[in-house]
Amino acid sequence: MTSIPLRDDLVGSSPYGAPELRVTARLNVNENPYRPSDEVAQSIAQCVFAAAKDANRYPERDFPALREALADYLAAESGVRLAPEQIWAANGSNEVMLHLMQAFGGPGRVVLSSNPTYSMYPEYARDTFTGYQLVARRADFSIDVEALAIAAARTNASLILIASPNNPTGTATPLADLLDLATRVRGVGPNGSDTLLVVDEAYAEFRRAGVDSALTLLSQAPNIVVTRTMSKAFGMAGLRLGYLAATPEIVDALRVVRLPYHLSAITQAAAIAALSHREELMAQIAHLRQLRDEAAAWLEARGFEVVDSDANFLLFGRFPDSHAVWAQLLDKGVLIREVGPEGFVRVSIGTDDEMDLFYRSLMEVTGGAL
Amino acid sequence: MTSIPLRDDLVGSSPYGAPELRVTARLNVNENPYRPSDEVAQSIAQCVFAAAKDANRYPERDFPALREALADYLAAESGVRLAPEQIWAANGSNEVMLHLMQAFGGPGRVVLSSNPTYSMYPEYARDTFTGYQLVARRADFSIDVEALAIAAARTNASLILIASPNNPTGTATPLADLLDLATRVRGVGPNGSDTLLVVDEAYAEFRRAGVDSALTLLSQAPNIVVTRTMSKAFGMAGLRLGYLAATPEIVDALRVVRLPYHLSAITQAAAIAALSHREELMAQIAHLRQLRDEAAAWLEARGFEVVDSDANFLLFGRFPDSHAVWAQLLDKGVLIREVGPEGFVRVSIGTDDEMDLFYRSLMEVTGGAL
Repeated sequence: MTSIPLRDDLVGSSPYGAPELRVTARLNVNENPYRPSDEVAQSIAQCVFAAAKDANRYPERDFPALREALADYLAAESGVRLAPEQIWAANGSNEVMLHLMQAFGGPGRVVLSSNPTYSMYPEYARDTFTGYQLVARRADFSIDVEALAIAAARTNASLILIASPNNPTGTATPLADLLDLATRVRGVGPNGSDTLLVVDEAYAEFRRAGVDSALTLLSQAPNIVVTRTMSKAFGMAGLRLGYLAATPEIVDALRVVRLPYHLSAITQAAAIAALSHREELMAQIAHLRQLRDEAAAWLEARGFEVVDSDANFLLFGRFPDSHAVWAQLLDKGVLIREVGPEGFVRVSIGTDDEMDLFYRSLMEVTGGAL
Repeated sequence: MTSIPLRDDLVGSSPYGAPELRVTARLNVNENPYRPSDEVAQSIAQCVFAAAKDANRYPERDFPALREALADYLAAESGVRLAPEQIWAANGSNEVMLHLMQAFGGPGRVVLSSNPTYSMYPEYARDTFTGYQLVARRADFSIDVEALAIAAARTNASLILIASPNNPTGTATPLADLLDLATRVRGVGPNGSDTLLVVDEAYAEFRRAGVDSALTLLSQAPNIVVTRTMSKAFGMAGLRLGYLAATPEIVDALRVVRLPYHLSAITQAAAIAALSHREELMAQIAHLRQLRDEAAAWLEARGFEVVDSDANFLLFGRFPDSHAVWAQLLDKGVLIREVGPEGFVRVSIGTDDEMDLFYRSLMEVTGGAL
């Protein structure tokens, strides 16, 4: 037996990840329940064929065509027109976040977030040896701008990560709060730099009417970074394509820490193909939003506590034993997520059929109204 | 203008990467010059179509089918049968190396290598805040086992990276030396752990007859890790698929630091498809090996100094002004690489036509024999 030189702080750690189970209703990782159409899949396959013919060559390191396609998509989705030089992409927003932490974090530096929030954030910090500090959200899961600004100044934070809509609560942060926070943390970062406010908009496309994207703040606040993903609204979790929008200066810093050729020619081709079908892929979003609002009303009508959501999931409770609810739902073929504050569970919005099964099963498990 | 909180040690750094130029003969990044056939590209496109139909779901985090396909390939290529649990893969061996450094390196830890060697190694160290120390190769570019073992013990090195065949010299390290080094560094790592000897076999398939792979050492030395890639011999640089073979314990440590779902469903499908055509993709290797040996003989016959190579490139010189040779070859449509010891340049082995152009151009640039 060998004794491996594992980092001391990793001893006893387990790989991150929700259970991968084949059940009737997979409502645990906020996937889009709709499979891409044959037309979309064929378009992806055709573009990949062309890329595969040149696969003996390394891909374009700075993927200009994909950056342009992403800028076009953001302009159509949010009304904000950005230059391709303001776009960065990687294998999932996971890797986008890693690049941010690699460029701006590191030993002796601090990243702040506001809990409860996405459970991967501490892993990005751990993987880059960056200090991770939390400022609690209020009882309604809104962020506390004042406390965050004070904490950023006290720690000379390099980065603040705010998921909006937040995971697992679904809470969107008002743009006025984001702009206020971004303004207050200018000059408080390391060596008098501006702390970067990273707004994680993984679920932005599911936001309710009247809720704007933080992309609209980029022209006013150069220290705001907005991350997005094709995994959720776009229904392309299997493609692993995350991206961000920021100043060209911030993007250039990420180019220094990215591994060369991090984005394969196949991924670039498939993502461009998928983006060309954005009307179809986005069409289901209106329906998913409606199912979410119906589910929230349904749960509330039965006495559950439901957090307002601008995402494709709902956090609800409260259960004296949320693990038991999770396990009993799983027995019925409904996989939800044990995550968030004590007594709550999270359910992703599935198809109409999946939601019906979820409703029926939840009634059986909880014995009707709470 | 914003002042971004860039890491102090990154200020003034440029993104890594060779020039991306469209020239007649691209002989600068050791790509395989043969494009995949229509049959291979179609097979990849078909598998990607199937994966795209499920792309709304996250990919399998531990990609069991791909690990099995890679184990099968290694058994066929090297005669060493490994369990899928001994295989790990990521987006290029770049990311495989990053995972190794993230799990076993970090602040206060040291990775050793033996120079001249692959210019990305210090970047992996920089990106993970790991100390990077070098032990010089001998005049013939062989490694100095004694000096490496002493340096490992002195620094309690976590990892030693030895490229074999080495880039940019082409030098393969004898297995006896690797086994000797691996044995001598057991117990000298952090906390009395075994220093891991990572043998980077990116170019292994090009090795000359009689040169064995370090895969044959895995059963004897549990602290040896062998990394491979589909970028070179397999002609799949655009796919970005690197992998490694090691003990299941080492692989499990990498699972802790990998970002969840780091390998897309599209990449998994395309790699499995490409591996199913290994006979075709590997068939050109014999010819490339022959072209390499011919090129070495051709250069030597004209008075150049050529380093013995087991890879798909040759390091040759010596030039009073190697940059001028590089620039004048580029003027003639031949892109080679400025890399390695003073006075040398590196040329990748291209097609017959590309090599003819290289020969002709080199004669014009150097005015015939040196």
